[in-house]
Formats: sequence, structure tokens, C-alpha cells
Amino acid sequence: MPLTPEQQAEVERLRDETQATRRATVPALEEILYQALPVLDHGFVRIIDYMGDDAAVVQAARVSYGRGTKRVQEDRGLIRYLLRHRHTTPFEMCEIKLHVKLPIFVARQWIRHRTANVNEYSGRYSIMDREFYIPAPEHLAAQSRSNRQGRGNLLEGEEAAEVLELLKRDAAQSYADYQSMLNETDSGEIIDPGRKGLARELARMNLPVNFYTQWYWKTDLHNLLHFLSLRADPHAQYEIRAYAEAMLEAAKRWVPLTFEAYEDYIAGGAQLSRQGLEVTRRLLAGEQVEQEDSGLSPREWRELMGLLGRGQS
Amino acid sequence: MPLTPEQQAEVERLRDETQATRRATVPALEEILYQALPVLDHGFVRIIDYMGDDAAVVQAARVSYGRGTKRVQEDRGLIRYLLRHRHTTPFEMCEIKLHVKLPIFVARQWIRHRTANVNEYSGRYSIMDREFYIPAPEHLAAQSRSNRQGRGNLLEGEEAAEVLELLKRDAAQSYADYQSMLNETDSGEIIDPGRKGLARELARMNLPVNFYTQWYWKTDLHNLLHFLSLRADPHAQYEIRAYAEAMLEAAKRWVPLTFEAYEDYIAGGAQLSRQGLEVTRRLLAGEQVEQEDSGLSPREWRELMGLLGRGQS
Amino acid sequence: MPLTPEQQAEVERLRDETQATRRATVPALEEILYQALPVLDHGFVRIIDYMGDDAAVVQAARVSYGRGTKRVQEDRGLIRYLLRHRHTTPFEMCEIKLHVKLPIFVARQWIRHRTANVNEYSGRYSIMDREFYIPAPEHLAAQSRSNRQGRGNLLEGEEAAEVLELLKRDAAQSYADYQSMLNETDSGEIIDPGRKGLARELARMNLPVNFYTQWYWKTDLHNLLHFLSLRADPHAQYEIRAYAEAMLEAAKRWVPLTFEAYEDYIAGGAQLSRQGLEVTRRLLAGEQVEQEDSGLSPREWRELMGLLGRGQS
Amino acid sequence: MPLTPEQQAEVERLRDETQATRRATVPALEEILYQALPVLDHGFVRIIDYMGDDAAVVQAARVSYGRGTKRVQEDRGLIRYLLRHRHTTPFEMCEIKLHVKLPIFVARQWIRHRTANVNEYSGRYSIMDREFYIPAPEHLAAQSRSNRQGRGNLLEGEEAAEVLELLKRDAAQSYADYQSMLNETDSGEIIDPGRKGLARELARMNLPVNFYTQWYWKTDLHNLLHFLSLRADPHAQYEIRAYAEAMLEAAKRWVPLTFEAYEDYIAGGAQLSRQGLEVTRRLLAGEQVEQEDSGLSPREWRELMGLLGRGQS
Repeated sequence: MPLTPEQQAEVERLRDETQATRRATVPALEEILYQALPVLDHGFVRIIDYMGDDAAVVQAARVSYGRGTKRVQEDRGLIRYLLRHRHTTPFEMCEIKLHVKLPIFVARQWIRHRTANVNEYSGRYSIMDREFYIPAPEHLAAQSRSNRQGRGNLLEGEEAAEVLELLKRDAAQSYADYQSMLNETDSGEIIDPGRKGLARELARMNLPVNFYTQWYWKTDLHNLLHFLSLRADPHAQYEIRAYAEAMLEAAKRWVPLTFEAYEDYIAGGAQLSRQGLEVTRRLLAGEQVEQEDSGLSPREWRELMGLLGRGQS
Repeated sequence: MPLTPEQQAEVERLRDETQATRRATVPALEEILYQALPVLDHGFVRIIDYMGDDAAVVQAARVSYGRGTKRVQEDRGLIRYLLRHRHTTPFEMCEIKLHVKLPIFVARQWIRHRTANVNEYSGRYSIMDREFYIPAPEHLAAQSRSNRQGRGNLLEGEEAAEVLELLKRDAAQSYADYQSMLNETDSGEIIDPGRKGLARELARMNLPVNFYTQWYWKTDLHNLLHFLSLRADPHAQYEIRAYAEAMLEAAKRWVPLTFEAYEDYIAGGAQLSRQGLEVTRRLLAGEQVEQEDSGLSPREWRELMGLLGRGQS
Repeated sequence: MPLTPEQQAEVERLRDETQATRRATVPALEEILYQALPVLDHGFVRIIDYMGDDAAVVQAARVSYGRGTKRVQEDRGLIRYLLRHRHTTPFEMCEIKLHVKLPIFVARQWIRHRTANVNEYSGRYSIMDREFYIPAPEHLAAQSRSNRQGRGNLLEGEEAAEVLELLKRDAAQSYADYQSMLNETDSGEIIDPGRKGLARELARMNLPVNFYTQWYWKTDLHNLLHFLSLRADPHAQYEIRAYAEAMLEAAKRWVPLTFEAYEDYIAGGAQLSRQGLEVTRRLLAGEQVEQEDSGLSPREWRELMGLLGRGQS
Repeated sequence: MPLTPEQQAEVERLRDETQATRRATVPALEEILYQALPVLDHGFVRIIDYMGDDAAVVQAARVSYGRGTKRVQEDRGLIRYLLRHRHTTPFEMCEIKLHVKLPIFVARQWIRHRTANVNEYSGRYSIMDREFYIPAPEHLAAQSRSNRQGRGNLLEGEEAAEVLELLKRDAAQSYADYQSMLNETDSGEIIDPGRKGLARELARMNLPVNFYTQWYWKTDLHNLLHFLSLRADPHAQYEIRAYAEAMLEAAKRWVPLTFEAYEDYIAGGAQLSRQGLEVTRRLLAGEQVEQEDSGLSPREWRELMGLLGRGQS
């Protein structure tokens, strides 16, 4: 379970309080506010705060004095037009803030998105928790042979068992030695009064990158969608994709019209190259086209045929 | 008056609606939400939305599961510590969104702050309003003689009258010709059916930079304070300072503890140089120091003596 | 002519000096370094400096100890792979710096690209030149009827002549009054010693947005390509497109492999929506599809048919 | 030694090649271009490329047609003025690119500086090297008692020996198990043909954060100075400070006038608060001031007295 009973109680206290506001409010998102949406074995995403809604996108695009909404159909049309034509600035007018608990190696991928605000739990200042990520057996994949950056078939039997064993053993050993160097027990008591204890900022260097860290993370809707389009993609590493998928659900509650447009124009669409477009035109004109005379590399040809539903053609 | 009756009615409609929310809420800021705070002769700042409060700064700094607040004194201490030691990231966890009406030349200074989101009224798409800024007589200053980038004494009498006359006449003429080129009246009617009317994106090039534009502008608390520290400063041009001053009032309502710390550590403080610090130490040690042996330029010396309350010394 | 003889002499002096460097160097770009590439009636783009080349993209992508280049074919393949798959960070490792002279209304569109560095000529500090943009007759377009943000047919005959006349007259009048308020002639002499002269930061508010300003502007290759994809696009206003086109030529000299990939995968390609992709698949499968059962709006249908070379179908 | 002979040979090849350029060039920085400046036990900083020099700051501030330099004294004065008055944009006109090898925990602090470009070695795609950071005995500090985020006295004797032993043992074990899970030896040979080998992106999660990674990192001069002001500060963790110190040396070679101003106005100066300034004025006026009636907290009082050279007063 990702939260301790004390943490869960704090969350419940927050959820019990309600204030009156004149601001744009989204009941479907308020429903899950502050709750820990579980991700991986010990991680979570919690929606802490948000600013704006679908109508706020419209309001900003129109630089209007009132709320964006005239009629929902009209707002929907404008939102779809904006997203289709890459008029991205109105989507920056909505903002969302998350509390995330995630393995360090996921955090290192995530932080590459620079247009965001971050406050991370400090291992210089505080003691790291004894929590680390161990993949579920169904995610224990071998190195892909066709794609140097990716996963292939699952490990099985003895090999899988040994990998899990090694990961657990090394994490446990690293943490035990972390405590020993700190000279403090789990409950914060001094182990050996004759020792000084290594500085926290040094001792933490012994912990592997599958240990969990936490941060507050805040970004605008445009950059959230950009994050999701890269990290909910099948090419993303499974572990960060698991976070992106939890965030997709939150986005759908928050801005349903924008989310629908995102699915139609970004996530569900595809970019064709100049040559790919030309091949498509020739095919539609009834021409027989082969990879060799397509201007596409074999790999691009395969990808295009996949997109166009021409499988092995 | 900056708002038309129709616009004012839209504002009132927004102010009349109240929703329940679980989010952090600031009653003192809600009081003025959506209202036009007047600036210059036709401009305004309207607070449209906000995210977070003083406690949200603390919450993020502690990466906590509950609200930031423990006790107000403790929160105040942490906020002051963070600001004093340039731990700026927790202040990025609060966000504010404004609707601003401002002269183009002010907008051109304002937009230099890049860590912000902007949606501006489009002169390509819409017809610009007939509204332009004319300085009040008490702001009609001559070029400073001592400072190439600044204002000196006020213009008076005939010279002042003529300047105001020229500014008004040219703005009126430019706008009349703008309409004439568009071939449209104020109320959007075609003037001469035999003409095509110049494209809006071209006709607007005839308007001087004292015409008003509008935008939605959104930034985080850290960047808001940075904006204010530069633009509410006496070295800023008066016209943008007028906007910064309206925003200071809003910031004070929004995050009173952060605002107090900002006044103590940023706005009301001063940066001493290495040499300035050395001079201060020598003076405190009872030494007689002159500019010539201070390591400071005459101008830096004057500035330092001013800071230290030593006037003409 | 965009440069005065004195300015031209300064440029020539710079071009005559050559230093030895160990850095990556691009002879084709060095050829035009510092020269004013003319744009519009008085504007220009000057390439002032650059960092990196195609090989530097490869070098960063591989985090290598030596130069990127192994063999040109291999570098080309990697660059195309990176651009196709949106691995944009290696393109940020090249940087370019420009000196640009441009009308204020173009500068206002340009500055919306925030990931760039800018130093603009200051109208607070210096006197603005008497230079303004007047469109050539072949760019004097009427407002489009089908597209609220765009141009339609050209103005002709008397209407065109009158528009040009108004633009010139108002610009001349505004500038004459600017000087009069400053109480300074072109050559910087005081006009009337009995007057103080209005502060520069105030007087400049009388100038229309077709007056020229100047700035130094610097960005990385990824953001340059993003700028070009939006501003060299037919939907961009002609005047900023004219600058983008001059910059395309410079980009082609600078990073020919990246530029080729940009043309194939970004500028010359197209994004299909989920529905657009589905329609394409159905058409390729021989199905008869009409707009009504396509899931596309009439406008999106028209755009898709255009892309697929099916004109009026 | 941080570089292998093959890597060293690549560096030498780069250093041996010289091209002619019309760009601003800095011989003192060219001298050390591409060389590995050693940091910590296995890390380094290599200067890969740069754009601009002190004169380029001046050139941009003046938006000039020629080189910035008129006379060195004049340039020096302007650079000092710009830095003193927080006119930071001209410093953004210079750019520098580094290749850095650094422990992951240092990389995690470094990456928080968002206005920079980064390409990191990929543990998804490539096998991580067997290189990890072990502190030198003179940096093996205990947790500070007075400051929760810092170091106190050095560990000694048996405790120090055991800490070093644990760090080495756990790093070696983690790497051995990393290889075992990958099913590959150091030289890339399959260990057990009957096994599949865990995907690289998963196996690397076993490595502690003292393992070395590498990246290309590029930023502008303003942001470099900001980085240095925070990371070369005594409050920064020693390990990142070691990198900042190597970068200070490079900055001094690159832009000596800017660097001198940085030392005088930023690194060597101090920010006084409103209350601190008031206390200083009262002391200079001969008044006796105590902490209790100073408006300062005990801690702020101590810091101010330290700054003013009043030690224990």
C-alpha cells in the first residue's frame, strides 16, 4: 500500500474540507483530489491542485471578459481547431499540480521535461525510506534484439527468479549499509554512540536508482499533453508509462473536450513525411509502389505500411 | 472607465457564481476576483484565477501529504528562510492568471519576461479598439540629463500643452486612417461598397504603440516576484510601474507571508558588492574611507553612501 | 539600402578578420557571416555567430569523445532518425545568433518564441530611426472573406494608391511630431533652446508599429526549426514569413543534413488525425468514403482530400 | 585516470585540427578545448565549444553593427554596469558547451538548472561503465549537528575505514549483479547462452547513484554564472562544488571582464535585508544595537555580524 495510515489520515482531512470559490471548478476532478492513485508496487500520483478547465482555454483564446463557454458545441469546435492548428498557447492557461512517488530512474527520465516546476524530497536533509521498485514478473523482459532501446520476450523460470532475487538482495543490502553508515535505525535511534554517522548527503550515494523518491510537480496543460504524448507512447519505458497512464485518467476528468481532441489529433494521429505522403497519394491513385522506389528506408516503409493498414504488403 | 457596461455585466455574472472546492482558497483574493483594477487612463489588471497560497509553498518545500500549515509562525519562519536563501522552487508551486489591458509599448517591455504564458488579442483577426494612452500632466517628464534612460523635470505650460495636443491628434488621425483603410466604421459597417478594405493584419501597422492591447497572462509566484522586483522599481518606466503597483496589492492579498518576506529580503534590501562590503566594514571599524581609496567608482560610491544613510559624506 | 556606408564599413572590417580555431566550423556559413541579407524594404537578417554543425548533433546524441562524424552516410541516417522520432535534444546542441532589423509589428509576433535570447535597441535610451515599412504593391492584400485571419485578393488602382498614401503620410507625420516633442533634429541638435524636450521613453509612444526596430536574437537549432516551421508556413503573416525565408537559406548553409531532414519530416510532411488516418485506410482498401460518414468536419475533409491529392473528390 | 587511451587519442585528434573562422575567438579558452579537466576520482569537465566573448556582451547590449570592443576600459565599465544593475540579457548572448562525467547523484542536483540543453548517456540503450565515486578520506564527513543539510567533522579511524569498505563492496556487488542480469561480460560476451539477459533499461536499476554517468551540457553565460553562484557556494554539496570550481577556471579564461564583475558583484558581495540595512545604518551612526531590538532573528543577526566583520559582537 503506498500510503501509511498517518498519511492516509492527512489525505482524508484535506478531502473533508470544502471552501467556497468564485474560480472555475471541475467536480469530476475534485472527486479524486488528494487521493493516491497507485502506480507500480509502491508509487502513486496524487492530484493536489488545478487551475482552469476546458472553458478557460476558450476564455484565453478569445481574451474574453466572461467565462469561455458560450455553448459546449462551440467551445468544442474551437478547442479542436486550436489543437489541430498547433495554437498551443491557450492550453498553457490551465495548470495542474501533482504529488508523485516514483523510482529514481523514472524521476531521471521525467525531469527531462523542463517546462515544469519541481520540489523533490531531499536526501541531503532527510533520511530516505526503505522502499524500492521490484518489477512484477509480467514486466521482467529480456533485451530486445531488433531494437537496442527496448524490451523483448519475458524472462522465465529460473532466470526470472534469479533476477528478482538479485534485485531484492542488493536493494536490501544497500539500504542496510546506508543505515549502518548513517549510524541510525529505522526509528531514528543512534546505533553506536561511539560513532559519528556519515552525512546524509554522502550515505545516500549507496542507494540504487530503483529506490523511491517523491516530488511535487506542476505544469500547464499544453506541457502536460506533450509529456503524455511522449511518455504514454509504446516507445516509452514501461515504468514511466505506468505513471503517464494514471495521468491520462486525471486529464480526462479535468478537461474532457481537450482530452478528446488530444486523442484525435495527437495520440491517435500520425505524422507522415514528405515521401510518405507522396507514396500514399500514388497508392490512392492506383499505382503499384514498392519500397525500392518509394524514397523511404525499409524501416520507414514498414512503419508507413503499418499505419496505412497494409500489413505485409 | 476601462470597462463597457456589457463587459461589467459579464464580470458581475462571474462574481455572482460560487462553487464548492477542496482546493486551497484565499478569501482576501476572492474578494477582488474578476474585478478590473484600473491602471493609467484606460487600462486595468483583472485577477482571473490563482492556484495555491502561502501554505502551498510550505507544503511543497516539505513534500508533505497534508496542507503546509502547521502553525502560522512556523510557516512564516520557513517562508522567510526559503526566500532569504534563494530556495526559489517552492514559490513556483503557486500560480496566478491575469487579464490585462495595457498600451503596446508597455506590453513590449512586459513580454520580455519569458517564464510566463500569454494570449494576446489579435490584430490579425479582430479590429483594434479606438483607445490610446495619453499621459496625465503630472507624468509628462523631460528627458533626464544625468541618466540617459530616464525622466527629468516635468514639462510645463505651452510645451506640455503642445505635446498632449500632438499625441492626441496623431493617435486620432492614425485610427481614422486605420478605419478608412479597413473600409469599416466603428460599428463594423462597410464604408464604401466599391472598395475591398485592406487586410486587418496590414491596416493595424498604422497604429502607434500608445494604443491599448489586451492579454491573458499567467505566471508562478517566484516569477511574479521577480517581475515585481524589476518593474515596481523606481528605475522602471512609470507606465509599467503603474501595473506592477496594482499587482503588488493583489500579491499582498494572495500570499501575505510571502509578500512580507519579499519586502524584507528583496524589495527593501540591497546587494552590496565585494568592495562595498569591504568599505562598510572599514567604516564600522572606525576607519576614515574616501571614494578614491574605496575601490568603488564615483557612482558606486554615491549609491553606497545613499544606502548607508551617509548622504553627502 | 538597409545599411549606411558606415555600418557597411564595420561589417567589412569584421569580415576581413580571420582567426584560427579548434572549434567545429562551417565554411558555407562563414561565407555570409556578418552580411546583411535584405528583407522587406529596410530590414535585414545578419548571421553574427554560430556554434556547432551537423556533426555536433551526432556527437551529442552519441555523447562521444571525438567529433560526431564517422561517415557522412551514417551521420545522415542518425540525424534523420532523431528528427523523425522527435528526439529533439541533440539539435539543441547547435546555436545561432542573428542581428535583425524588423518592423515592430513583426517583432511582436517573433518575440512570442520564448526559448531564445534577445537584446533589443532601446527607445528609452536612444532615438528611433526614421525608417518604416511600406508594403510593396504586390503585398497589399484585402481582408480574406473565407479566413478571418488572413489576406484575400490584392487591392488595386485608387484604393491601393490611397492606402499607400495614408501609410506614408501618417508615418511621416508621427515621426515629425516625435522629433518635435523630443525637441531634437535628425542630427541631434536642439530645436528650441527654450524647451526641455519630452523624455525619449514617452515620445516614442507616438510611433506606429510599422517603424523598424533592431535586435540581437539567439536560439538553438531545435527552436530555430520550430520557429521556421511556424513562420515560414503559408498561414504566417507575409512580413514575418519574409524573415523566415531568409533564415531558411542560412539554415541550409549551416546544417545541410539536418535541413534536408527538416524538409522531409516537418515542413514537407503532414499530421493526420485519428479520423483522417482511418479515412485513408478505408480509401486504400477500396471503400467509397464521403465526408458525412468520415468523422471529419467539412473543413477537415477538404484539408485531407487536398493532402491526399484528391482535389474536389 | 578519467580517459582511456582511445578516448585520449580522440581528444588529441580534435586538438590537432585548426580551422579559419571569422567568429569571435578566445585563445585562452582554445588552449584547453576538448581536454578533460579532472574532477573527483573519475569525473571530468571538457569544454567542447563556445560562442562569443566579453566583447559579444557589449556588442549585444549596444545592438551594434561591428564588434563590441571600442576600448577595453569602456567595455569593462559597461560590463560591470550591466551586471551590477541586473541587465542580464546581454550575458545570454554567449554560450558554452561541456562534456561532463559525473556521479548520478551530482547529475540529479545539476539537472535542476532548467535553462540548459542536455544529452545524457543512455542506460536504456548502452551498458553502463563500471565506474563509481568513492569519497577521498578528507571528504568523508559526519552529519552536521547545527545544520540539517550539511557536513560536520570528518569521520576517522575505524568508522571511516568501514564506510569506505561498505561503499566499495556494495558498488562492486551491484555492478557484478548488473552484469549477471544482463548476461554479458565486460567485453560484451554472452555469459550463459541458455539465458536471455534482462533488458538494459531494467538491469540498470540495480546501480547505486554513485555510479558515473556522462552528458553534453550547454548553457548561456548568464545561466552559467547563476549555476556557479549557487553551486560554487559553500552551502552546495562538496561533490557538485568540485565541478563548479573547474568551471570557474574555464569561465575566467573565457570572459575575464565578466568574470571579474561576477566576483565583485555576485560571488563576493552580499544581499542585505531591509532590517539588516537598517541595523548597519544605526551602527554607522554610532548607535549601540543588540539582536533583540534589531528586527533580525538570532540566526540572521549572526550572519549579518559575520558579514560586517563584527565576529562575536
